[in-house]
Amino acid sequence: MRILIIGGAGMVGRKLAERLAKDGHLGGKAISAMTLQDVVPAQVPAGAGFPVAIKTGDLSDPAEAGKLVADRPDVIFHLAAIVSGEAELDFDKGYRINLDGTRYLLEAVRQVGNKPRVVFTSSIAVFGAPFPDAIYDEFLTAPLTSYGTQKAIGELLLADYTRKGLLDGIGIRLPTICVRPGKPNKAASGFFSNIIREPLAGHEAVLPVSEDVRHWHASPRAAVGFLLHAATIDGAKVGPRRNLTMPGLSVTVGEQIAALRRVAGDKVVARIRREPDPMIVKIVDGWPRNFDARRATELGFRAESTFEEIIKIHIEDELGGRIA
Amino acid sequence: MRILIIGGAGMVGRKLAERLAKDGHLGGKAISAMTLQDVVPAQVPAGAGFPVAIKTGDLSDPAEAGKLVADRPDVIFHLAAIVSGEAELDFDKGYRINLDGTRYLLEAVRQVGNKPRVVFTSSIAVFGAPFPDAIYDEFLTAPLTSYGTQKAIGELLLADYTRKGLLDGIGIRLPTICVRPGKPNKAASGFFSNIIREPLAGHEAVLPVSEDVRHWHASPRAAVGFLLHAATIDGAKVGPRRNLTMPGLSVTVGEQIAALRRVAGDKVVARIRREPDPMIVKIVDGWPRNFDARRATELGFRAESTFEEIIKIHIEDELGGRIA
Repeated sequence: MRILIIGGAGMVGRKLAERLAKDGHLGGKAISAMTLQDVVPAQVPAGAGFPVAIKTGDLSDPAEAGKLVADRPDVIFHLAAIVSGEAELDFDKGYRINLDGTRYLLEAVRQVGNKPRVVFTSSIAVFGAPFPDAIYDEFLTAPLTSYGTQKAIGELLLADYTRKGLLDGIGIRLPTICVRPGKPNKAASGFFSNIIREPLAGHEAVLPVSEDVRHWHASPRAAVGFLLHAATIDGAKVGPRRNLTMPGLSVTVGEQIAALRRVAGDKVVARIRREPDPMIVKIVDGWPRNFDARRATELGFRAESTFEEIIKIHIEDELGGRIA
Repeated sequence: MRILIIGGAGMVGRKLAERLAKDGHLGGKAISAMTLQDVVPAQVPAGAGFPVAIKTGDLSDPAEAGKLVADRPDVIFHLAAIVSGEAELDFDKGYRINLDGTRYLLEAVRQVGNKPRVVFTSSIAVFGAPFPDAIYDEFLTAPLTSYGTQKAIGELLLADYTRKGLLDGIGIRLPTICVRPGKPNKAASGFFSNIIREPLAGHEAVLPVSEDVRHWHASPRAAVGFLLHAATIDGAKVGPRRNLTMPGLSVTVGEQIAALRRVAGDKVVARIRREPDPMIVKIVDGWPRNFDARRATELGFRAESTFEEIIKIHIEDELGGRIA
């Protein structure tokens, strides 16, 4: 089985590649080769028992996708995207990568004709306020960002190419990934991870919103699990609605902090500094808070059920079990 | 006020142009010029008190839209499309006209920079089975045809270009237009009109489905009314969800026939011949039957409330008041 990961240098792509290298197989079939593509060189995961090719390129170049799928990968993970903030600031760049790039990929796959499973990472940004209390599987996609628009279009294309038998697509709408490893970044959603990751590492973190803000989370480990399940699930069971809201955990910031206290104690929690930021408060106010991800759950996708679990996964996977 | 109608040679485009020529104004402003574009030459409507330019061209040519909007129309009606059956048979052509053509138009409008009202005719084909009893405004768009996919993508683009302030779009999802004038055609939906139009004109019509088939209708006159209202409605009242399911009338074929009997008598109804067609039965079975078009109704869009009214409009507008 040949695997292609587009966006293989990103956080989720890297973790997915590491997991595939460790497993050596996917859906019961041995992996014979893997290609990791991104705009910067991805890392070869340690201990892979199969050849791993590292490629760099720009998916908005119409020729790029054709080169990537020429060796007929059996499973393609399409994780590459211009992120929300940048797609909002640079309208043309967002459409070029997130819409044109995705379309070039689907079209290149169609031309090769081997009908691979294509796993497309979509986003809860396809939904726009006002929302019901819990966003259900039949709720409309009315995005309020260009990024969400581009992801929603990618979903429609994926479903149509699948319906026409040109490829075998599954789109997954990821929750906010928490705890995101690495340095604090400027993403408006960054604080959801910062307030856990930084205190656990002995650093101060800034909380820019009130503790009653509710959001939708899953761990990086759960995200990799979603991708693997999406790669191997029986398409006939999914039916024509190929885009699925992934399960997650809806918690308030206060509940996040209470879980951190239970796992790591008052000393760690004391490293969170409250500093309200009206701009971030306003942005976050328009985000989805809770979902009823019934279809994905029935189809066997699994996320964490407590925030303690999410914190413990971070401590295990990123901190070698140690709290500062 | 300058008006551009793309798809001006089609049935709805022709009726819209005739109505604008008759009115001489739109939203209280005098019309100073109108352009009718299509792949074949549109007809200059009778009695227009302003210059009407007829242009032919192909919207999938990237240069076409730029030429059409260079004179900065204030209102653009985008009615052009490859229809459902053809878009399903010719995948590339459907995407070229219905997706690329629409995107070229929005992009050309953005480049000109005058932010016109753009009225985009979408379709109830953006919805795919299974449906609730009445499709509500927050129901997801999960199309089951390439045409529906292309229309759903057009809606997303229209909303995003509007949200970014690049133009001022309103998308309207038209019901099946009934009674469609002209000759019987091979569209799977043709019989809904055929069974009314042909008997009224003294001809036999074939009914390929059972009388309990339910569908969603509006007259050509209502469709023109939707377009005029969409051209002049206050965008602030519509908000960011710029795509609206138009009101219509949900009736069974049996109710259509009963209305025809009340309007035109048994002799006319006797011209309907039952000849079940399993292929048409199957196609129609996947179509939406009923909607709760609350938002559009609250925003002042109006359709017929009885099928007699729809029949009488046909007799008035197409038959000069006479039944054969």
